Amino acid sequence: MKNIKDILPGRVLTDIEDLFCYGFDASSFEGLPSAVIRPVNTDEVSIAVTFAFERGVPLIPRGAGTGMTAGAVPNLRDSIILSLEGMNRIIDIDDKNLVAVLEHGVINAALQNKLESMGFFYPPDPASMDFCTIGGNVAENAGGPRALKYGVTRDYVLGLELVLPNGKVLTTGVKTHKGVVGYDLTRLIVGSEGTLAVITKIFLKVLPQPEEIATLLCPFPKLESAAMAVSKITASKIIPRTLEFMDHEAIKAVENYKPVGLPADAEALLLIEVDGAPASVNAEADKIAAICTSLGADVRVADDIYSRKRLWEARRSVSPALYRISPSKINEDIVVPRSKIPEMILSLRNIGDRYGLKIVNFGHAGDGNIHVNIMTDKNNQEEYQKAKDSVKDIFEATLRLGGTISGEHGVGLSKAEYLKMELSPLGIELMKAIKKTFDPKGIMNPGKIFPADI
Amino acid sequence: MKNIKDILPGRVLTDIEDLFCYGFDASSFEGLPSAVIRPVNTDEVSIAVTFAFERGVPLIPRGAGTGMTAGAVPNLRDSIILSLEGMNRIIDIDDKNLVAVLEHGVINAALQNKLESMGFFYPPDPASMDFCTIGGNVAENAGGPRALKYGVTRDYVLGLELVLPNGKVLTTGVKTHKGVVGYDLTRLIVGSEGTLAVITKIFLKVLPQPEEIATLLCPFPKLESAAMAVSKITASKIIPRTLEFMDHEAIKAVENYKPVGLPADAEALLLIEVDGAPASVNAEADKIAAICTSLGADVRVADDIYSRKRLWEARRSVSPALYRISPSKINEDIVVPRSKIPEMILSLRNIGDRYGLKIVNFGHAGDGNIHVNIMTDKNNQEEYQKAKDSVKDIFEATLRLGGTISGEHGVGLSKAEYLKMELSPLGIELMKAIKKTFDPKGIMNPGKIFPADI
Repeated sequence: MKNIKDILPGRVLTDIEDLFCYGFDASSFEGLPSAVIRPVNTDEVSIAVTFAFERGVPLIPRGAGTGMTAGAVPNLRDSIILSLEGMNRIIDIDDKNLVAVLEHGVINAALQNKLESMGFFYPPDPASMDFCTIGGNVAENAGGPRALKYGVTRDYVLGLELVLPNGKVLTTGVKTHKGVVGYDLTRLIVGSEGTLAVITKIFLKVLPQPEEIATLLCPFPKLESAAMAVSKITASKIIPRTLEFMDHEAIKAVENYKPVGLPADAEALLLIEVDGAPASVNAEADKIAAICTSLGADVRVADDIYSRKRLWEARRSVSPALYRISPSKINEDIVVPRSKIPEMILSLRNIGDRYGLKIVNFGHAGDGNIHVNIMTDKNNQEEYQKAKDSVKDIFEATLRLGGTISGEHGVGLSKAEYLKMELSPLGIELMKAIKKTFDPKGIMNPGKIFPADI
Repeated sequence: MKNIKDILPGRVLTDIEDLFCYGFDASSFEGLPSAVIRPVNTDEVSIAVTFAFERGVPLIPRGAGTGMTAGAVPNLRDSIILSLEGMNRIIDIDDKNLVAVLEHGVINAALQNKLESMGFFYPPDPASMDFCTIGGNVAENAGGPRALKYGVTRDYVLGLELVLPNGKVLTTGVKTHKGVVGYDLTRLIVGSEGTLAVITKIFLKVLPQPEEIATLLCPFPKLESAAMAVSKITASKIIPRTLEFMDHEAIKAVENYKPVGLPADAEALLLIEVDGAPASVNAEADKIAAICTSLGADVRVADDIYSRKRLWEARRSVSPALYRISPSKINEDIVVPRSKIPEMILSLRNIGDRYGLKIVNFGHAGDGNIHVNIMTDKNNQEEYQKAKDSVKDIFEATLRLGGTISGEHGVGLSKAEYLKMELSPLGIELMKAIKKTFDPKGIMNPGKIFPADI
């Protein structure tokens, strides 16, 4: 790859120590790119993409590299990482029409904070929100605890500015809250994991901030009681904004890592939030507390913003905390119909027993999205193989219950080999034909979502 | 077209008096199909589609024919109407997981009523809800008044069963509230107006019914005060579930057609609903009433379900009622950023004056979606031409304000010639390439969305 440093002077990294920094994400995969390009505007993105297009070089768009499925990992030799971290301007927040315009690299929490200071609210809150970019969130269709009431990233993206694989710039969608002109290219790009185009700008719908929030920590002596509480809360027609679940091992891991006083003897814990007008928030919080108490929970209410923040920091630290249990983990994010959670948890226990593996579960109980963590050690080849084998069993059980193998992490590299378990050959064929339409030379993040053999 | 009656005995209509019934929709376009096929299950749809595919005959899927942009009108000679009206089973309502499964032809109101009887809620409520099918709603990405708080059809479709143009059956999406495996084919089909595939089954997300609703009728002596009220209500951080607007002419037309006691002297009227927990509903209704009263509105609150229903029937009858003003109308559904509504209304007045045409406006003020009705007489060729000419001016003004030429009616035939005003050649090219991927022979609703010359 001659001349790559000349195409965008000062924006291209090729030193080995720099390349190492862009070789991994939050999955267990890693690789090494040939170069890293860090454009700071759409024109520069277009120049970089055109360079790759003309030479047929694989191009891997990357936000902050916090993905869980290796979507931003350089999996092929001679690939270029296109890092959008330098495009981090919030261009506009239209407070009259509740629309925010921003570049790919804006950090989720930076947007949240800016909006909160103005009385507004952007719901999607992946656990990595302090680091991940909104552009990466769009590429993965990121969720988070608040998805239960407020939906996922897809539900907030009104339009996009894209650089297509041939270097041309396309604006999709609308800048209004409604619009139905032509095919929905916007939502075709949401969740396409960098395989169709590079996202440069994003038009987001935002909401008014809810007036009040109540946060309840509900530890249960028995796992079954926690599952029952989830059913009873939803049957009572309340939609909490979050209904998070941690099992015993997850609670213990967090308390070891970042002690906030979680009850380490509980078999399960629910972290529940309701929001809205003060009167309804109080009524709903009381109803939820009564349900949980009647099922044996020792309910605690976060009395101020500091204790609320501490509880959420604890929740968000589950994933890193688990490395205290074992040096490696395989992290899945299956979804089953909410009513099937108890059955799924039982299946997970059986699978863990069968393979002799510790499986730790936490996640978004409200929408049936369970983060399944198979604890292992990559250096213990025999055990690691068992852990990998168990994934197929877990996905089989998930699909049997009417679920999906990914609720919010996407497919990337780590789930590509399982794609055929969920999607039909016909569906995959159509998706690959759509990819070819966008990306005839196959330069956009090749090998992600679709494995080489299908 | 030999043998068409034999492919599905008893399901095929070819008598001229039957064909006439399928020659029009709620637009001003009409045509005549060569045949109408009325399948009652997916296998029959597949047989019908395969027949058209093998012969390269245009196929026009049709729900109830209530579309406003001629999407279901047989625009070409020798086309087949595929009417899904006979596939009208609600297959399942999963009350534990809040998912409904239904066939294309289920009437929107039938689903609403069934869900309400179980304590659930499906928000999208197009004005034609008593007649239109959910399948048609999906094909058009239908909205309605409640879209302001609850979003449009797209936001509730979890997955679809489709018959592709080659007759093969494909299931897309998930049956859970979350899922990100592969490209979002589901939302690519939503709003594709029958040009990509035939929708046979639909998996919908439903919600718990809100505990309480308050309905306020707010007539304003001045149009400007109504616009100001919209701004003040949204600035107060309330999201009403509806915030509907009617201008003076719309009010008068409804009172002539279906008298419910609307104040015929008001320059504008807002029909506002809030919903949620009783305490918050009361507080929000009081706040809204205070804002509107302070701007000169004579606020009336609907005190029971009957008066609420009467007000909504009045609102939904605006479109038919307008035929009392003139025998024909051109009906557009532009969207502008909400804050630009007063400017847009002024533009519409100027355009009406310039062309000497009466323009009546109503619609969803909360999300900037205005139904613009240019009143005319199709038999007066000179005037009708003027009315058609004014459409371009209206769209130019809309786009200049950052809007879109369709909020919920789609493009169909009636807006196809204006597509290039909103979308770039690059965007259109990409959409047409996607169409080709699904429909290589171009049999699916040809001429809709994309006019022949682009």
